[in-house]
Amino acid sequence: MEFSSKLLENAVNEVSRLPGIGKRTALRLVLHLLRQPSDHTKFLSEALLHLRNDIKTCSKCHNISDTALCDICINTKRNSEIVCVVEDIRDVMAIESTSQFNGLYHVLGGKISPIEGVGPQDLQIDSLVNKVESGEIKELIFALSSTMEGDTTNFYIFKQIEKFRIATSTIARGISVGDELEYADEVTLGRSIVNRIPFEQSIRS
Amino acid sequence: MEFSSKLLENAVNEVSRLPGIGKRTALRLVLHLLRQPSDHTKFLSEALLHLRNDIKTCSKCHNISDTALCDICINTKRNSEIVCVVEDIRDVMAIESTSQFNGLYHVLGGKISPIEGVGPQDLQIDSLVNKVESGEIKELIFALSSTMEGDTTNFYIFKQIEKFRIATSTIARGISVGDELEYADEVTLGRSIVNRIPFEQSIRS
Repeated sequence: MEFSSKLLENAVNEVSRLPGIGKRTALRLVLHLLRQPSDHTKFLSEALLHLRNDIKTCSKCHNISDTALCDICINTKRNSEIVCVVEDIRDVMAIESTSQFNGLYHVLGGKISPIEGVGPQDLQIDSLVNKVESGEIKELIFALSSTMEGDTTNFYIFKQIEKFRIATSTIARGISVGDELEYADEVTLGRSIVNRIPFEQSIRS
Repeated sequence: MEFSSKLLENAVNEVSRLPGIGKRTALRLVLHLLRQPSDHTKFLSEALLHLRNDIKTCSKCHNISDTALCDICINTKRNSEIVCVVEDIRDVMAIESTSQFNGLYHVLGGKISPIEGVGPQDLQIDSLVNKVESGEIKELIFALSSTMEGDTTNFYIFKQIEKFRIATSTIARGISVGDELEYADEVTLGRSIVNRIPFEQSIRS
């Protein structure tokens, strides 16, 4: 791509470093900004800079937060004895939007993945084990992705906390609500039969 | 979408104002920036601000430029008597990348579109007519999109400059190189038969 302006080239290069954005998309976005009032670009740049420089992570659950402790952890109405272990902040947002969980979270910051060079020491596992050891947690819910890396991480954490004898569970895997059986993959369908639930329980939830 | 941080929410909102970027994509991009060194965000923000505040448009062709006259207009090796009329800077880049055009450009900044409220006065048409009137141009090539708006704009400009009796042409419409005939639409195929070119000419180009 040949640019008539160094400023334009520079902006396109920086934007195209974002994941999933190629040079053409970057050019489209940058030209859009040029057509908008310059305030738009100012607000965008400032929002990104403020976020990057001033953001904190909650010292208790490692969720992204503006304060030292996040809104969820300081909420006394929530049950602090049940902790849901998730990969990252997007999972917290997804579970929060269901309004079905009233406990606290523990954000690992990823999952164990030897291929991507992520080991247990790169994740917030030690602080989770410490929390369990201190006796403040009664139940741990594993809510990681249903992938090999997710299962590995679940198992690694389980092995570390097994000796403390607290309740552990994983979120249910099964056929998505609204899905046709014939299009479900065999593993999911198989698991959903093995882990079937009493019919009376299913109509209540 | 519920955010645990105002800074995060603000950044996601600003990013999602960009065209084709929804809240989820914006969140993915913003979280990516948080995982990168803070220099990345700094360079991105600065590049966008510099572009928006310091960019100029070439006073001759209205192309985006770092200087008062763009690199193409000040290049004395180019034929300033042939001017290619295009919609926007992306078309300049597309034609430049073919290395098949040695003249200058005239960037209209859009096309006449009553539906979007774009009239002739919103485009760089007057300055084009002035250029033609001054006698510095021998040939005008219309290279606008082959849409109703593009054709309307072509025709509007043609009517304005008709009296000055300079050569005018439009870029050829036809079957794309590498395309199968059976999948071409009727209008394109029809035009490509009406505007057929001598075989000898086709094998030379």
